[in-house]
Amino acid sequence: MSIITLTTDFGSSDSYVGELKGVLLSRCPSARLVDIAHGLRPGDIAGGAWVLARIWDRYPMDAVHLAVVDPTVGSARRSLAARAGDRWFVGPDNGLLSRVQKRHAVSVAVQITPAYAEPGQISDTFHGRDVFAPAAAHLACGGSPEALGSQVDAAELTRLPISEPERRPGEIAGSVVHVDRFGTLVTDIPVDWLPPEPEAEVGSKRVAGLARSFAEVRPGMPLLIRGSAGTLEIAARDESAARLLGVETGERVTVRSVA
Amino acid sequence: MSIITLTTDFGSSDSYVGELKGVLLSRCPSARLVDIAHGLRPGDIAGGAWVLARIWDRYPMDAVHLAVVDPTVGSARRSLAARAGDRWFVGPDNGLLSRVQKRHAVSVAVQITPAYAEPGQISDTFHGRDVFAPAAAHLACGGSPEALGSQVDAAELTRLPISEPERRPGEIAGSVVHVDRFGTLVTDIPVDWLPPEPEAEVGSKRVAGLARSFAEVRPGMPLLIRGSAGTLEIAARDESAARLLGVETGERVTVRSVA
Amino acid sequence: MSIITLTTDFGSSDSYVGELKGVLLSRCPSARLVDIAHGLRPGDIAGGAWVLARIWDRYPMDAVHLAVVDPTVGSARRSLAARAGDRWFVGPDNGLLSRVQKRHAVSVAVQITPAYAEPGQISDTFHGRDVFAPAAAHLACGGSPEALGSQVDAAELTRLPISEPERRPGEIAGSVVHVDRFGTLVTDIPVDWLPPEPEAEVGSKRVAGLARSFAEVRPGMPLLIRGSAGTLEIAARDESAARLLGVETGERVTVRSVA
Repeated sequence: MSIITLTTDFGSSDSYVGELKGVLLSRCPSARLVDIAHGLRPGDIAGGAWVLARIWDRYPMDAVHLAVVDPTVGSARRSLAARAGDRWFVGPDNGLLSRVQKRHAVSVAVQITPAYAEPGQISDTFHGRDVFAPAAAHLACGGSPEALGSQVDAAELTRLPISEPERRPGEIAGSVVHVDRFGTLVTDIPVDWLPPEPEAEVGSKRVAGLARSFAEVRPGMPLLIRGSAGTLEIAARDESAARLLGVETGERVTVRSVA
Repeated sequence: MSIITLTTDFGSSDSYVGELKGVLLSRCPSARLVDIAHGLRPGDIAGGAWVLARIWDRYPMDAVHLAVVDPTVGSARRSLAARAGDRWFVGPDNGLLSRVQKRHAVSVAVQITPAYAEPGQISDTFHGRDVFAPAAAHLACGGSPEALGSQVDAAELTRLPISEPERRPGEIAGSVVHVDRFGTLVTDIPVDWLPPEPEAEVGSKRVAGLARSFAEVRPGMPLLIRGSAGTLEIAARDESAARLLGVETGERVTVRSVA
Repeated sequence: MSIITLTTDFGSSDSYVGELKGVLLSRCPSARLVDIAHGLRPGDIAGGAWVLARIWDRYPMDAVHLAVVDPTVGSARRSLAARAGDRWFVGPDNGLLSRVQKRHAVSVAVQITPAYAEPGQISDTFHGRDVFAPAAAHLACGGSPEALGSQVDAAELTRLPISEPERRPGEIAGSVVHVDRFGTLVTDIPVDWLPPEPEAEVGSKRVAGLARSFAEVRPGMPLLIRGSAGTLEIAARDESAARLLGVETGERVTVRSVA
């Protein structure tokens, strides 16, 4: 059983997801395809990097994570197959692997060469179908990375700027790294860092009170919660915290103790 | 072949669906995962209950229906594995199983205990990944329900208040139980109850004429139709009946004969 | 391995996709289900026809493409199983196969008869579940088309009016046949027809410059690009060209050389 997961910004009303899957199943019929998310905002590389990092280790060894959020397709950006933490990534080298790399060193990185795909068959705009899907199928069916192209130095891979949370005297400074479908603000502040009786300042608002469940506050009220990625989250009961607090991805968050 | 179906409000732009699937495939590699719906409105338990009831029997015996719409995750609400009509439900005990129970008695109900999941591995906010997915994988791979926790009385399970349609002298009273993507108003009035030449009153509007196809009325016009769940539906041709009539889930519907 | 692909306008918050899949897996347990797109606009037959044509040949021989966009369900429109280019189509005969037929002649066309489905089990509004899914499962599991009903003349199948691009002296006239999720305008003008230094006129706007990548223009700027379907596309960097140019499907496009 070889697993290929799919993470894209292709949506659910076009042919793109279907074309990708057709190539995968034609070239590696034994592959199991697993849809992760196809509703990423068009061109949202940071969102793709976030999703990849969270799903990465949940899949069996040797899983191939195919991710295509590729706003500069056709430019000089590298086509990449990379191994990290015993799983494969296949996709554009535009930063999608950035968050995975914070946890796992890249052990193999290969620049997929046009020669690998069928001659004359690579479109200008759909490398997902013409370059990445064939490469993912190749790896999923046990093909060697060497056959895809030549190795590159892992240090050369494109990295998104990712801010790091900081412990300062009397406070912790971090940021909102993701806003999820529920409007919950996911921060990069590890829950282990939280002081007793934490209060978070985000935008111009303050939210105090670390809860274990949304049920602990009244509907419409914000709360702090230990998130499922191991970091602080700012949420609201039956409401979008992003809307309630007027906050988007990138906003700074400061945490202090009010004990 | 063991089937696990997935019904959630996780959407298609976050990692949540992918994390769930990763846990399922890691713990029960032979499971077949079937996406039902991930676009339920955040926290829409009633919508989840509706979807579950309609798909329940369409799947082979022993299918595991994993459903996660869990707005009070982390509270005292029970984690549940329940068998009804020879299929399994795994999810929060918050009413998601309510409509299934109208047709099938629960023969086994188990409160999933934290001890089942890996110690220290249960987040406050994502029991779908940390509790329900491991339990669903366990059942799909033939594990015993006893291993998940201790049995509870089926009579104790949480039930949503579900109104029942009524036959009164000269009229039938029911309600809109679901509005689908097409804006069709699905009622709880069995088609067998319909009088000759029925007319429905919903909101302040009246719709007469039972059609066999949308093609029988002009574009933009409402019609009555025998729905695919065996109940009366109020629809409109090439138009959302919900928008046209200004009606939402919960609205009362009265049917009389104009024969 | 028998593949059944699914293309519908059922969305991701109702039970319809799940009901369809339940029927497929109950009747042909060995089938592999592949989600193509469920987010087509309600009733968008032209969009479905577009998606089908693009995915058709990407799947292995004998794949069954189940497509349900069926606004006139219940009317006299035919229920169809048709073979073209060594793959099967199952769905309503309302034009969904139109674009596939431009490339592949239909070799077998069968009108699915109500007798095939279980007596009394065909709803008025959900032939996807009650007629098409059983037929698709039948074919995927190796059943004969003859068992589904009687053959019809391929020439009788419903065809959408599809305009053809034209070469005229000094210009090429075509139209926008699809607007994708990214807002890119996909035309029917073959890239082989493009003159040197092409300029496209669409709506009242002109776009010049054939690029190989979005990266060649500044954010927000429109460009011409060789599309992944082999036809000219009008796109914009980090922006929807449809919004930028105020253009929808059906708009005429004229291309001239400015060399």
